[in-house]
Amino acid sequence: MPGNGELTVKEGETITITNQSIGGGWIEARNSHGETGLVPEEYVEVSVCVSQSCNFSSSFPAAMDDDEWDDEWDDTRSSACYAEVDLEAAEEGATNRTEVQGPTRKITLNKFPGFSKSGPELYLLAKMLPKGKEKISVYMGEVGPVWLYPEVQMECLVADPKKGSKMYGLKSYIEYQVTPSTTNRPVNHRYKHFDWLYERLLEKYGSAIPIPSLPDKQVTGRFDEDFIKLRMERLQSWMSRMCRHPIVSNSEVLQLFLNHQDEKDWKLGKRKAEKDETVGVMIFSQIEAEAPELGLDEVERKCESFSRFTKAMDDKVKDLLAVGHDHWKRCTGPLPKQYQKIAKAFQNLSTVFSSSGYQGESTLTDALTATGKTYEEIATIISEQPKKDLHFLVETNLEYKGILGCFPETITVHKAAIDKLKDADKLVATNKISPHDKPVMAKRVSNMSYALQAEMNHFHSNRIHDYNRVMQFYLEEQVKLYETIAGKLRAALQQYTTL
Amino acid sequence: MPGNGELTVKEGETITITNQSIGGGWIEARNSHGETGLVPEEYVEVSVCVSQSCNFSSSFPAAMDDDEWDDEWDDTRSSACYAEVDLEAAEEGATNRTEVQGPTRKITLNKFPGFSKSGPELYLLAKMLPKGKEKISVYMGEVGPVWLYPEVQMECLVADPKKGSKMYGLKSYIEYQVTPSTTNRPVNHRYKHFDWLYERLLEKYGSAIPIPSLPDKQVTGRFDEDFIKLRMERLQSWMSRMCRHPIVSNSEVLQLFLNHQDEKDWKLGKRKAEKDETVGVMIFSQIEAEAPELGLDEVERKCESFSRFTKAMDDKVKDLLAVGHDHWKRCTGPLPKQYQKIAKAFQNLSTVFSSSGYQGESTLTDALTATGKTYEEIATIISEQPKKDLHFLVETNLEYKGILGCFPETITVHKAAIDKLKDADKLVATNKISPHDKPVMAKRVSNMSYALQAEMNHFHSNRIHDYNRVMQFYLEEQVKLYETIAGKLRAALQQYTTL
Repeated sequence: MPGNGELTVKEGETITITNQSIGGGWIEARNSHGETGLVPEEYVEVSVCVSQSCNFSSSFPAAMDDDEWDDEWDDTRSSACYAEVDLEAAEEGATNRTEVQGPTRKITLNKFPGFSKSGPELYLLAKMLPKGKEKISVYMGEVGPVWLYPEVQMECLVADPKKGSKMYGLKSYIEYQVTPSTTNRPVNHRYKHFDWLYERLLEKYGSAIPIPSLPDKQVTGRFDEDFIKLRMERLQSWMSRMCRHPIVSNSEVLQLFLNHQDEKDWKLGKRKAEKDETVGVMIFSQIEAEAPELGLDEVERKCESFSRFTKAMDDKVKDLLAVGHDHWKRCTGPLPKQYQKIAKAFQNLSTVFSSSGYQGESTLTDALTATGKTYEEIATIISEQPKKDLHFLVETNLEYKGILGCFPETITVHKAAIDKLKDADKLVATNKISPHDKPVMAKRVSNMSYALQAEMNHFHSNRIHDYNRVMQFYLEEQVKLYETIAGKLRAALQQYTTL
Repeated sequence: MPGNGELTVKEGETITITNQSIGGGWIEARNSHGETGLVPEEYVEVSVCVSQSCNFSSSFPAAMDDDEWDDEWDDTRSSACYAEVDLEAAEEGATNRTEVQGPTRKITLNKFPGFSKSGPELYLLAKMLPKGKEKISVYMGEVGPVWLYPEVQMECLVADPKKGSKMYGLKSYIEYQVTPSTTNRPVNHRYKHFDWLYERLLEKYGSAIPIPSLPDKQVTGRFDEDFIKLRMERLQSWMSRMCRHPIVSNSEVLQLFLNHQDEKDWKLGKRKAEKDETVGVMIFSQIEAEAPELGLDEVERKCESFSRFTKAMDDKVKDLLAVGHDHWKRCTGPLPKQYQKIAKAFQNLSTVFSSSGYQGESTLTDALTATGKTYEEIATIISEQPKKDLHFLVETNLEYKGILGCFPETITVHKAAIDKLKDADKLVATNKISPHDKPVMAKRVSNMSYALQAEMNHFHSNRIHDYNRVMQFYLEEQVKLYETIAGKLRAALQQYTTL
């Protein structure tokens, strides 16, 4: 869409990021023709190849029409290519969380969801809407338009990662056990199956519902225990979020993922899902709002308000992540080191004192030794604390960063629809559309707005729940931390002679 | 004393430190003739002049024989000359404790106590010992030789610093009220009076008893409230230590300082004190040990053991001070800054959330705001804590650093006496001394050893008391700190909705 600052890019094209701090889900990039412009962040996949022979984009099939997926994709790519990570000059000894950032790097466009190939016109001006079985209802709730929530919320458990292999052991992978609360029957899935699910959900719902990316596609040390644990935890969070969503959880594709009976069932279901035509903006054709049509003004006002909110929250979530990252480094690096030094200083003093040869020395030296030991313990406690509490605060915010990163696309589609409707009279005058297309468009834009509002209300209610929960957890753990330290120091104190 | 690595220096001579990390109270320096050698740390006074015209050494009268002291010494020197301080590259925003250190600097020899001009021979070979009124008794206590302690320990209060002036207001100074527990009658003293007392005590007792230096002779901003408070606190500690010492507290000069009736009394007493001849090594002539004479082996063994202990403790006290200094910087700089950032991140999130327009937002946003405020308070608490507890731990260790810095001199005198006694037979053979001088020397060396042992036992008992007290105080305050933080976080936690 040239003229509005956006860069025209083709699927699979390699572009260079020139400014990653545009914000709002946009980055500035230069394509192979030397043209510079904005590209939605969600479209690009950062990659840096360590060997010349690594053809990254070709290892990402744009369409999956065969079950014989390239195993490189899941199993060995990570050893050939690395995501470029920008380690901040780490404070000495600190354990770092790594995050992709940096001013300029090569990126490969690896997905270009169907819904974006066309604007919202496809839906707004469609003569015949597909007669899908799935209807998506929007009701008027206390807080405004809301999705229809199931009576029992589905949950699912991702657990028990197991190393599997194929090709006579030449290829190995990790398989997770996924157990939905509805059937309580476990199914096994590899990471690439999750990724397939993600692609389907994004394609189908991405115009209306933020479908956050899966955790860390490319990481080295895939068979490392800590990595497997973290990936499982993140897959769990992602699956929980999908299961908690009334529309997504009810989708055929998620049901297939969780409930397929056998390999044949799974393969058939996959083929069917990949042929689904109600994808992209056409998802709005399934929306049924039991409420009066909304005026353009209100639609626009709501859209602006959501746009502002998600942008502002995105900024603050990123700030919190940066602070959390710093705090993590401090708590695992300089701070425990400091306490170890204090411990050592007290212990050394105790050692010297015990060499005095003076009578009645032992109470003080024992107490000083105990104090030193206490500070050593405090050092350990402090350095292990972030894993216990800050981790979850960071993970929740990473999840929200992922979700918020999806909104610019959703809102762009919405704004394009609004603009189209605003242009309706002109389009009628120039015979681009017929006069009776305009009320149809207005009705459909209203429908889109109901969907957006329902989704925002879903987002808000989840957000309040999630932040309330994670803040409570964090503060509870922090209270315990400081109480533990106080308790340990009190015990050390009691070793001294009361004067 | 050339030949033993020591540098020959004259009183008032300016030398250059070439290595300050020799340890044991020694520094390596080069004199004006280009000769390099060891000099006792206690002999030198570091100074750096900021103007060419500042003649530092001349402003330090070597002997005080007039009451009309140069007021520059107390009142304006600090604005002309500065002690060179080596500020470590301070972490941003940190409040620094400054300490004099650095590899090479100009120093001025400003005092050269009488007891060191001659070795211990003056006492060991004296034909006639002065018949002083003051006898210093050493008894055998549970822990070995001990001083005779008074039944009631004297204390004194240094308080109420007041700005005074003279010369029609041209010169101003700070006067402290000093109130001994014995009379409960306050006397006023300026810093230079304390310094006079210090010089007298050092001259008289320095061979046998560590007389620590007065606090910070040269500091800018002498009329700054914080400085006056800190100086008063340190003068208080110094006076308390002098009053707590059974020999020093009983001395005529300290009694004069605390109990003089009026200006005339004070001036007369000062003149008399300055004429005291039982100074330097002659102090040992006053020692009366009610115990059998000690053999040379035991004397030497004790001396070696004290030498090792004081050297080792000196090292560890310095380590603890370095750690305390670092911790102070961290607690007043990066750590509260970190907590302020955390506070800001939560508050910003709260602000964004409250702009959502979603119903039922306020419980979470109020709780997040409260959490932010709590972390702000924690930042303040943490940054103000060192003044409340670490300060006293540091001050106690600074005091001990000062005391330990006096031991090398005491031990050097002692070792010289031992060496002299070892040489006795040779001295007799070469007619340097008469045969009956040897048993007299042996008796006197034994006397010196009793004094050293009594002083070491005094030191140990004070040390155990002081460290026991300061550690308890520090840990109590640290327990309170962590409990306060835990309490504040618990209150913040309770603002969230229970799930």
